[in-house]
Amino acid sequence: MGGKCWPGARGERWRMADAVLFEFLHTEMVAELWAPDPDPGSGGKKKSLSVLEGLGFRVGQALGERLPRETLAVREELDALKFLCKDLWAAMFQKHMDGLRTNHQGTYVLQDNSFPLLIPMGSGPQYLEEAPKFLAFTCGLLCGALHTLGFQSLVTASVASLPACKFQVVIQKS
Amino acid sequence: MGGKCWPGARGERWRMADAVLFEFLHTEMVAELWAPDPDPGSGGKKKSLSVLEGLGFRVGQALGERLPRETLAVREELDALKFLCKDLWAAMFQKHMDGLRTNHQGTYVLQDNSFPLLIPMGSGPQYLEEAPKFLAFTCGLLCGALHTLGFQSLVTASVASLPACKFQVVIQKS
Repeated sequence: MGGKCWPGARGERWRMADAVLFEFLHTEMVAELWAPDPDPGSGGKKKSLSVLEGLGFRVGQALGERLPRETLAVREELDALKFLCKDLWAAMFQKHMDGLRTNHQGTYVLQDNSFPLLIPMGSGPQYLEEAPKFLAFTCGLLCGALHTLGFQSLVTASVASLPACKFQVVIQKS
Repeated sequence: MGGKCWPGARGERWRMADAVLFEFLHTEMVAELWAPDPDPGSGGKKKSLSVLEGLGFRVGQALGERLPRETLAVREELDALKFLCKDLWAAMFQKHMDGLRTNHQGTYVLQDNSFPLLIPMGSGPQYLEEAPKFLAFTCGLLCGALHTLGFQSLVTASVASLPACKFQVVIQKS
């Protein structure tokens, strides 16, 4: 995890990325939304996933609205996806996405070999079923950022081996 | 709001602090927790405030655990408070607290003349009653960071004129 240096008490330096603040807040927010639902019939887990996706979508839109006008004028799908993989990922996680593949028919697979929001949860296969709750916010965020760039999309995520993951983006043609 | 530069598509630069990500996520989290409660008898608002405080406390603890050992060995209350006002505030908001006063009996008042998490909500007096929900997370966070430094505290916040606010910290003697 990348760190930046902040001046610390008495002159020493406190290595801490403000990105860490986002990551901690994300982790705690997931834990909070996953707290036992008092009403087992209310579809709690499914609801929590869609709440996280919705939060992510609005944050993605808000980030998108901060884009320079040139970026907002992106007209090519592929340019928009490259923007997510490079610029958005750098702003969020201080690194680039590790891979981007496409079938040239509107489907894109974005690969992160060590997704920072999955790192806190451990890496054994027993954690695999816990992964979706750590991915829902970012699926929504990618979808929200694409929305601001003028593309409607469906974004899903999958994990084969923690903490690597893939985001699949399907652009919706109007 | 301070911004940092990230390399943008095609060489232009996208001004965006990753701090903005934390601020957007905080804003959306508050909105989510404040969504209309289906059960009006459940004390929704009070519960949401304590959920936000609890989230803040755990994030404050987690941040505290990243401190260098020298800082964790802080033994003087006043040093701990100065640490919050300078280092913690710099890591979170890229600035220092504007003022710190104390009665030298365990009560401290920390003044921020333009608290970043209050800025999104507008500054008219009609917004004043909305302010507590934008302060609860940070009250918890200060309390959590102090906990890691070895001090038990009660932290409350007040607003007289948006977006300025004061945090009052009362150290609990054991």
